[in-house]
Amino acid sequence: MLKLLDAQRSLLTQRCGRELRVVAVSARDRKRDRGVSLDGLAWHNDPIDLASNDDVDVVLELIGRSDGPAKSLVESAINAGRHVVTANKALIAHHGTELAKRAESIGVTLAFEAAVAGGIPIVKALREGLSANQLSTVYGILNGTCNYILSAMRETGREFDDVLSEAQELGYAEADPAFDVDGVDAAHKLAILTSLAFGCSVDFETVHVEGIRHISPVDIQFADELGYRIKLLGLTRSTEHGIEQRVHPCMVPLDTPIAHVEDVFNAVVAEGDFVDTTMYQGRGAGEGPTASAVVADLVDIALGRTVPTFGVPAEKLVPLKPAPMSRHRGSYYVRLMVLDQPGVFADIAAALRDHNVSMEAVLQRQRAPDEAVPVVVTTHETEEASMIGTLEAIGALEAVVEPPRMIRIERL
Amino acid sequence: MLKLLDAQRSLLTQRCGRELRVVAVSARDRKRDRGVSLDGLAWHNDPIDLASNDDVDVVLELIGRSDGPAKSLVESAINAGRHVVTANKALIAHHGTELAKRAESIGVTLAFEAAVAGGIPIVKALREGLSANQLSTVYGILNGTCNYILSAMRETGREFDDVLSEAQELGYAEADPAFDVDGVDAAHKLAILTSLAFGCSVDFETVHVEGIRHISPVDIQFADELGYRIKLLGLTRSTEHGIEQRVHPCMVPLDTPIAHVEDVFNAVVAEGDFVDTTMYQGRGAGEGPTASAVVADLVDIALGRTVPTFGVPAEKLVPLKPAPMSRHRGSYYVRLMVLDQPGVFADIAAALRDHNVSMEAVLQRQRAPDEAVPVVVTTHETEEASMIGTLEAIGALEAVVEPPRMIRIERL
Repeated sequence: MLKLLDAQRSLLTQRCGRELRVVAVSARDRKRDRGVSLDGLAWHNDPIDLASNDDVDVVLELIGRSDGPAKSLVESAINAGRHVVTANKALIAHHGTELAKRAESIGVTLAFEAAVAGGIPIVKALREGLSANQLSTVYGILNGTCNYILSAMRETGREFDDVLSEAQELGYAEADPAFDVDGVDAAHKLAILTSLAFGCSVDFETVHVEGIRHISPVDIQFADELGYRIKLLGLTRSTEHGIEQRVHPCMVPLDTPIAHVEDVFNAVVAEGDFVDTTMYQGRGAGEGPTASAVVADLVDIALGRTVPTFGVPAEKLVPLKPAPMSRHRGSYYVRLMVLDQPGVFADIAAALRDHNVSMEAVLQRQRAPDEAVPVVVTTHETEEASMIGTLEAIGALEAVVEPPRMIRIERL
Repeated sequence: MLKLLDAQRSLLTQRCGRELRVVAVSARDRKRDRGVSLDGLAWHNDPIDLASNDDVDVVLELIGRSDGPAKSLVESAINAGRHVVTANKALIAHHGTELAKRAESIGVTLAFEAAVAGGIPIVKALREGLSANQLSTVYGILNGTCNYILSAMRETGREFDDVLSEAQELGYAEADPAFDVDGVDAAHKLAILTSLAFGCSVDFETVHVEGIRHISPVDIQFADELGYRIKLLGLTRSTEHGIEQRVHPCMVPLDTPIAHVEDVFNAVVAEGDFVDTTMYQGRGAGEGPTASAVVADLVDIALGRTVPTFGVPAEKLVPLKPAPMSRHRGSYYVRLMVLDQPGVFADIAAALRDHNVSMEAVLQRQRAPDEAVPVVVTTHETEEASMIGTLEAIGALEAVVEPPRMIRIERL
């Protein structure tokens, strides 16, 4: 952040018509080497003091986590009449609605471009660029770590754990990878996108979340054979049952642009009634992209360019009516480990029929009499509840020796 | 436009905190059926009168062409203190700098999101979303008609003229297709992107422009074999010799995302020093996408969200220093029709050597002794001036029976 402000000083002064000046800093450890000098900046041991420093117009919160010091700082800053720029997706996903209400009632900006998809200006695109549209759906690759792992697994044929370790060594994954690989980080971002897309309150709790730990090379290989790529997507959609928010691995057809977004890149697709389909792609994390997004928010604030936090006034955000996941409709990929013996297919087909699920294709690539071999079933569109019932019935068959693996197919 | 304003009335009122109301209209033919009622709207035979109508805060210019009534209307509107929203790329490409200066000196907004890449909010992305970056290059597929024609030629193997006729029947190309297929429309858009990217005055005159009329199925087939796709790109880049603005057919590697943007879709890639590479994709034309962009500009104006027209104050736009095309450096694809006889390759190789051009590969797929067969040469990076010299020398060879066809290779 400081590096960017220093490098672009003259450009930013031109854009803003005034200088963006860092006047005060607060952090846990004053002595840590940050690669930039903090000379001449006021130091506050307590960030709350910083927020009430008279020289401060805008507070940048880069602490992280949904509660604790980050939340206290943002609340105090807003209450003290300071604008706030944050990259904190957890904070906005958990407390976005109330913070927005407070900020708007006081007349300060709460900006969070960096919280979703890093350097991609997707918050601005949804809130301003597509403001003339009713959006029907927004979906995307929202976590670079997962996309890197899935890309590397596909390219090398290696197992999840193996690729994760490598990603940790390369710095693409945290020592505790749970937030990323279990889908929580993507779900934070999705909850924010939902409010921007549909003008509803932020409701992280109702996001259906599944991670990528159970994705195995055999599924990636089958996906390839079937013309799909496996991606961890976050999707939000307005349906007849309410708003469906879900984060889970998906099989996406190879002829969709998002199938080709690889490695640590993020991409978001937004579909509006007048603009049709638009897609935004770039780096979803990292020092440079994050600084780019944070400072873009700063420039908006410096120019007095304000907009309701989520595109419509926070007081008008409607409560989100969640669509139950059991009512989700879609196609499914199911992989079974099955003893290669006569009659098994008949039992599987019967389970599908009993739950009214229509089979699209069935694949068995290996033969090994009386040993376990992978069998793949894909279905036509059906309801999630029926699919869950089917999986239970199939899982209970004697010849099925491992829990069935299900991956949703998204025909985007 | 009127349809959108009607359909989204309540959403837009929420976003703007007030109603966006159409109060007056001017057009050539009052009686034409526009599919919407003009009842209750003031009618002006002369658009200039409309601009000075006291009820009018914002004038939408949807007339088109760089001069004539469109220019008069926009000038009068600005002079009368009205904000202006336009979709007119020719107007901004030819007169953008002076109009921006005038608008900023009077304190009104001149907005033109719809002028570049239709529904994709790329003007906003460059001017605001990436405001913290020094951009090094911006390039994209800026003309949907050309992209449709090139996609269809590749898919069907048909000739340019044939596919153009079909595109005209389908309404994807105008009766007079020159603006599209000769690259002028893309060049208008590129000139605008250049100013947004580099903070310089708009300089349409110095854009190097080539269209797609000479692209033939044999080149498309060779591109495929070599791992490329042929796209009409507009590229603007800051180089040591100045700013390079060019619109011409390119061979782009199949592993770049832009290679997979097909049919009428547009896409723009922007590379910044902090954000790295970002890409924006969507429909570049059509009633819905255009209305989406125009109304997004209206919402910005209604909220008082202002920004310098090209991202920095118009008075500070520096004159564009054009890089001579002869200094362009890149790789080249050259296709020759050559009499299949001994010694020809030696002559071609000598011409390359004499101009210091290093050959990467040479391909001859057919044999037909003493008849003309296609031969393809690709080069390593070289200077355009050397390449032009090489092409002249090769074209003068007796065994080369047609003018050489050159397509630049872009390793993006």
